[in-house]
Amino acid sequence: MKRAIYPGTFDPLTNGHIDIVKRAASIFDEVVVAIVKRSSKDEFFSYAERLRIAKTAIGALKLKNVQVEGFDGLVVDYARKKKVSVIIRGLRMISDFEYEFQMALTNRSIASDIETVFLMPNPQYSFISSRLIKEVASLGARLDQFLPQVSAKALEDKLARK
Amino acid sequence: MKRAIYPGTFDPLTNGHIDIVKRAASIFDEVVVAIVKRSSKDEFFSYAERLRIAKTAIGALKLKNVQVEGFDGLVVDYARKKKVSVIIRGLRMISDFEYEFQMALTNRSIASDIETVFLMPNPQYSFISSRLIKEVASLGARLDQFLPQVSAKALEDKLARK
Amino acid sequence: MKRAIYPGTFDPLTNGHIDIVKRAASIFDEVVVAIVKRSSKDEFFSYAERLRIAKTAIGALKLKNVQVEGFDGLVVDYARKKKVSVIIRGLRMISDFEYEFQMALTNRSIASDIETVFLMPNPQYSFISSRLIKEVASLGARLDQFLPQVSAKALEDKLARK
Amino acid sequence: MKRAIYPGTFDPLTNGHIDIVKRAASIFDEVVVAIVKRSSKDEFFSYAERLRIAKTAIGALKLKNVQVEGFDGLVVDYARKKKVSVIIRGLRMISDFEYEFQMALTNRSIASDIETVFLMPNPQYSFISSRLIKEVASLGARLDQFLPQVSAKALEDKLARK
Amino acid sequence: MKRAIYPGTFDPLTNGHIDIVKRAASIFDEVVVAIVKRSSKDEFFSYAERLRIAKTAIGALKLKNVQVEGFDGLVVDYARKKKVSVIIRGLRMISDFEYEFQMALTNRSIASDIETVFLMPNPQYSFISSRLIKEVASLGARLDQFLPQVSAKALEDKLARK
Amino acid sequence: MKRAIYPGTFDPLTNGHIDIVKRAASIFDEVVVAIVKRSSKDEFFSYAERLRIAKTAIGALKLKNVQVEGFDGLVVDYARKKKVSVIIRGLRMISDFEYEFQMALTNRSIASDIETVFLMPNPQYSFISSRLIKEVASLGARLDQFLPQVSAKALEDKLARK
Repeated sequence: MKRAIYPGTFDPLTNGHIDIVKRAASIFDEVVVAIVKRSSKDEFFSYAERLRIAKTAIGALKLKNVQVEGFDGLVVDYARKKKVSVIIRGLRMISDFEYEFQMALTNRSIASDIETVFLMPNPQYSFISSRLIKEVASLGARLDQFLPQVSAKALEDKLARK
Repeated sequence: MKRAIYPGTFDPLTNGHIDIVKRAASIFDEVVVAIVKRSSKDEFFSYAERLRIAKTAIGALKLKNVQVEGFDGLVVDYARKKKVSVIIRGLRMISDFEYEFQMALTNRSIASDIETVFLMPNPQYSFISSRLIKEVASLGARLDQFLPQVSAKALEDKLARK
Repeated sequence: MKRAIYPGTFDPLTNGHIDIVKRAASIFDEVVVAIVKRSSKDEFFSYAERLRIAKTAIGALKLKNVQVEGFDGLVVDYARKKKVSVIIRGLRMISDFEYEFQMALTNRSIASDIETVFLMPNPQYSFISSRLIKEVASLGARLDQFLPQVSAKALEDKLARK
Repeated sequence: MKRAIYPGTFDPLTNGHIDIVKRAASIFDEVVVAIVKRSSKDEFFSYAERLRIAKTAIGALKLKNVQVEGFDGLVVDYARKKKVSVIIRGLRMISDFEYEFQMALTNRSIASDIETVFLMPNPQYSFISSRLIKEVASLGARLDQFLPQVSAKALEDKLARK
Repeated sequence: MKRAIYPGTFDPLTNGHIDIVKRAASIFDEVVVAIVKRSSKDEFFSYAERLRIAKTAIGALKLKNVQVEGFDGLVVDYARKKKVSVIIRGLRMISDFEYEFQMALTNRSIASDIETVFLMPNPQYSFISSRLIKEVASLGARLDQFLPQVSAKALEDKLARK
Repeated sequence: MKRAIYPGTFDPLTNGHIDIVKRAASIFDEVVVAIVKRSSKDEFFSYAERLRIAKTAIGALKLKNVQVEGFDGLVVDYARKKKVSVIIRGLRMISDFEYEFQMALTNRSIASDIETVFLMPNPQYSFISSRLIKEVASLGARLDQFLPQVSAKALEDKLARK
């Protein structure tokens, strides 16, 4: 059985992430969407919020072979613990490409038995960036085309409380 | 009549920005240089300072069809309010290209009636970055080749006060 | 009145080209789609065929301010003859970006009064390349999602005669 | 059972290709290395030669779940015929990235049920290009670090006969 | 005698930096590894720590024509003071390329008598980034393949104290 | 004494090449501009013509430490024969970057004792491409800003005879 994990910050989960989850689920027998507890980037949503949003939005997809979990530490250690040897990442743009390659090669140096595979989202999601969405959201833009409903609502609520 | 806005932080206005303003003014009937009040990036100059610098430096160009204004909120909302359907952006480098495309496609998703057009500066300005100029200025470099006089003086004054 | 030309080989015209034509027509008062007679690349369709396809497909758009013409020689000489000071080009990808910048800067060196502006197609057209379409067409792929009907039919006919 | 094909010209098979084959074989239950009969590029080795080289070099790896075949027509048609829904491609560089994305998105437009996944070779193979190797080979360079033995010998023999 | 400086933050010195130092030492008669005192980026190690690490790791190379120093202010001013007219920089990736070009052209604008030359590390070091190493180190990864021993130990010690 | 070679097709020598020659001459004790006899690309000028043009244009620079020669075979073999351990290449754009890196790493694999160093031309030459210049020349553009006089005259003569 071929299992894969799709790790990330998911701050918050976007329609681009969901596109990758669906593609991964069609290729691998089991997919774990793995949410980083401690983010190296400044996070907007807390770990608990990010986990709740991802569980709700991905649960709504009704994909039997996908689950959402949180993890801490190195992604390759988590992969080994879960007996998974494939990491999934989405590639949208050149700048993704370089960062993702650095990360994948660093992971390979640490754990040569874990392979990273890259999937391409639908081009209509290729420009969606969590950072940009948070920026336009704070300026009042509608979010339904970028985010699943639960992410959009959480973002609007959070901005309203600020 | 074809009007366009050229939005940005302009922190501070550089010779590269001026190059784009002149090109835009030769293409469109009216150009509004629109200075973002609330910047998502850490700003060096305050909004009032950035506006004053831009008004002085662009005023000195004596271009009848260019005006400088400030705005808050989404650039597409401001464009609609001003009855402008074209946003102008300069493209210098590949890294610009990706960020600008993300931004332009996000704006298009929010407001499909507003089009972004890209202009190319003179290659001699293609390497000028506001960030790098502030860095070399803080280390004592002369600034006349990068910045209009009013920007250079404001930057030197501000650094002297630090 | 602001006029612009959109020059190219158009071998053959794709849905990506049509997307750019529509955007240009919304920005400028008049747009000339200008088909290069003598192509530097190996052409698949003859000049007469490329012109007929473009006239048919663009005619079907019923855009009052767009016309299709052929031209020979330097694009900047043609622009001056037509009293046009703006050249339009579509930017899809990084590799476009570099070639287009070289071309635009070369044109600017030859004729500093002519400005090149870049427009972005809908991302769903960003991967359409005339070369790749001809390749998959020769292998039997259906073409309706890449090409207007007249282009698709011409390509199928030509491949059938080979 | 998860099967994948790894299509290409393989003109000739390099150590970079072999690196990707091994990684694919560790991820998927079955991998078909699929050699394009009719190449759109000018081919150096004939289809029969390319097939023989690939069979020899990949046979020497003794990977039970990898086989080498030839195919004609669209890769997505071949994939469907083989009941495979995953196409594998190696990504070495930015220029690969753009071409591969165009190709993958074109394939996805033709056959939305077939997914392309990208793997990264070892960086020590990331600069190996079949074109460059043929060029340096023609100038007398030794080839063992770039090519498996059978490819190197075939290339030297062919160059000697020219 | 041809002298060159290799300036940087070196926070901390990696195996990639050492690779560039060795190459520079084979090309130039004398090489100064010049450690920036005041970093524009958030530094992890203090200037004193960065200097000590670099002196230890580069001292261990026993290269007679390489010395390690610290400097403050503009790199071109320091180069002139040291009567050096060549700045060395490593190029690993596209993103390096753009930043390095901006920096080199800015330096050239300030001091046209100082030339920047770029060297390429071994591809096996091309993905090593100080930032990423600090990130994986904080998550518990072993560091010997990325860093010289003194850097690795300093990083582990610092993380243990946090 | 530090010697370097600057190899290329130079078909024909441009102002961008001359810019790199001058920079190389300021860094190294001796520079050999080495013209490839047998080009892998379709050449416009014959080897004898390319050599004559380069000798004339570079001779006019009156640089005592620069000479022009032709060579055949691998550049690293020629470098060793000339007792030179440094190859110089100009980097203008991202697309250069990738090709040049592939070439440099291939050369390093063949001859690890030869190092490639990259220099940056003045940005005003960064868009000059021999291919594009030949194209615009064939369409009647003036060439003085792109080419030294001897190259421009040779190109115009050759095009007139066609």
